[in-house]
Amino acid sequence: MINTVKPYVAGIDIGGQTTKLGIVDARGSVLSQTTIRTDTHTDVNLFLDDLCSAFEELATKTGGVEKIRGIGVGAPNGNYYTGTIENAVNLVWGGSRTIEFAKMMEERTGIPVALTNDANAAAVGEMTYGASKGMKNFIMITLGTGVGSGIVINGEVVYGHDGFAGELGHTTAVRYNGRQCNCGRTGCLETYASAIGVARTAREWLEGTDEPSLLRDLTTPITSKDVFEAADNGDKLALRIFEFTGKKLGESFADFVAFSAPEAIILFGGLARAGDMLLKPIEESMNANLLHLWRGKIKIVFSQLKESDAAILGASALGWGI
Amino acid sequence: MINTVKPYVAGIDIGGQTTKLGIVDARGSVLSQTTIRTDTHTDVNLFLDDLCSAFEELATKTGGVEKIRGIGVGAPNGNYYTGTIENAVNLVWGGSRTIEFAKMMEERTGIPVALTNDANAAAVGEMTYGASKGMKNFIMITLGTGVGSGIVINGEVVYGHDGFAGELGHTTAVRYNGRQCNCGRTGCLETYASAIGVARTAREWLEGTDEPSLLRDLTTPITSKDVFEAADNGDKLALRIFEFTGKKLGESFADFVAFSAPEAIILFGGLARAGDMLLKPIEESMNANLLHLWRGKIKIVFSQLKESDAAILGASALGWGI
Repeated sequence: MINTVKPYVAGIDIGGQTTKLGIVDARGSVLSQTTIRTDTHTDVNLFLDDLCSAFEELATKTGGVEKIRGIGVGAPNGNYYTGTIENAVNLVWGGSRTIEFAKMMEERTGIPVALTNDANAAAVGEMTYGASKGMKNFIMITLGTGVGSGIVINGEVVYGHDGFAGELGHTTAVRYNGRQCNCGRTGCLETYASAIGVARTAREWLEGTDEPSLLRDLTTPITSKDVFEAADNGDKLALRIFEFTGKKLGESFADFVAFSAPEAIILFGGLARAGDMLLKPIEESMNANLLHLWRGKIKIVFSQLKESDAAILGASALGWGI
Repeated sequence: MINTVKPYVAGIDIGGQTTKLGIVDARGSVLSQTTIRTDTHTDVNLFLDDLCSAFEELATKTGGVEKIRGIGVGAPNGNYYTGTIENAVNLVWGGSRTIEFAKMMEERTGIPVALTNDANAAAVGEMTYGASKGMKNFIMITLGTGVGSGIVINGEVVYGHDGFAGELGHTTAVRYNGRQCNCGRTGCLETYASAIGVARTAREWLEGTDEPSLLRDLTTPITSKDVFEAADNGDKLALRIFEFTGKKLGESFADFVAFSAPEAIILFGGLARAGDMLLKPIEESMNANLLHLWRGKIKIVFSQLKESDAAILGASALGWGI
């Protein structure tokens, strides 16, 4: 993999507010990184001006642009096949249209650009540098504000017919009377198992009972971090919220296993910090719901990428494959 | 694909009672076929003696064994990676053990043998000769006694880490208070959407109401064929049973699409004969449950393989890839 003339790749992670970028070597070390604002321009051309300047500045620190083999971009609604960002309503310059992002960036930099969504980028990152190194079949689940997924089969990310495969956060966790989801449907896994879902469970349970809980003392709206801290301090209600969240994840994971029989499911993102509080109920309910042939055989593991570097590493890993 | 020295493949479909075998050319024509009993020997070696004699007799009719390029076998619990049949309790010589079927048959015939389960074989058959010719991403759903599935991604059947991927009949259609399944779990799609599931719905609904129905006149236990015939004669209860069955399938299909974003879902097997009575509610409920980006875009099509040849064709198609 090491190319002495072009030994590095660049990784760019586009979020709604900020965009992270970095230069990465073949061992997965982030050599330099920086952050720019995503939301200061409504015109994507002006955003790309900022991004390309920041990229060139970074590249200069590591020997120049000519040492960069490829650029990988993780972006909301990113389509790997077409290199486009489509209907990304969370990006101020996105909106309900299709932006030929990879092509535009290639024209500006002269370097090949590959683009996908952030969960797929995370899966490639984990396979290249992290917990699933050497695994040919695994599923990456990102537990952040929402629930994302990147599915790897036979060593390749599944993009499907149109480039948008792997929306496991929008599979059905509760069929009837499920929670309303931002996507317009109800009962999606994301409404239960994301950071927002955990906070929602907390609010519902606090309103529905008189059970004492540290969470009742908060003066600001409950976040999943509050629930984590309360659980970490032994709060029973908060602990049960993680049990419930893990149960929902485990039930869904059993169905995912029936689809692709992965070696492992890898957990990534803020909620994964809950560790055993989440892992144990996931394993219990997944195994209770699995077909016999898979019981006790599917590993649930946490991402091994350093959280501050993970987004850049994930995106950058795409750069090796161009 | 046409090899003038070895222009044919053989397809073998192993069922609980009978085993079908045939010789197939590259156009998908079944040149000769026959059937032997599966259940007359408890020793797999004696079954293989019968099978190999029948195979040699067939091959003689089409120019001899030396014209056969490969043998494809579809078998319950068949594992493509290892060529084994594992824990196939529905085969009298199967039981709770692992049989090195492909290896044993190779040793006897001197011809390469590939083996998988019947639903995966059906997917390969459809891709080679049928409705999904040229498709790289589709899901085959077999609606027989049970519900089986073969998933194709990037032009390849998904076998997963252990060779047993694609058990979509055992994903959860109803999470709580679902029907008891033979697999030991509850709520599996198979308990609602198989031939047995349809008969079960009929029995439950007849017991639960006084609604008049042609199905009340039967003197033998209700089968899915009875429900089909009643519906075909305009029986309202029977028609609603197919609506219910289609709705359950459509709900599950929406989750399958979120996984692999296929171009099409292909329906195969006895229940598929219900045609529009099943197709319309499937399309309606699938689209109502899909993420917006896929609504109206996923084709639901019926298998294009002749039913009497389909099992042999599906298995035989594996023979080209060896």
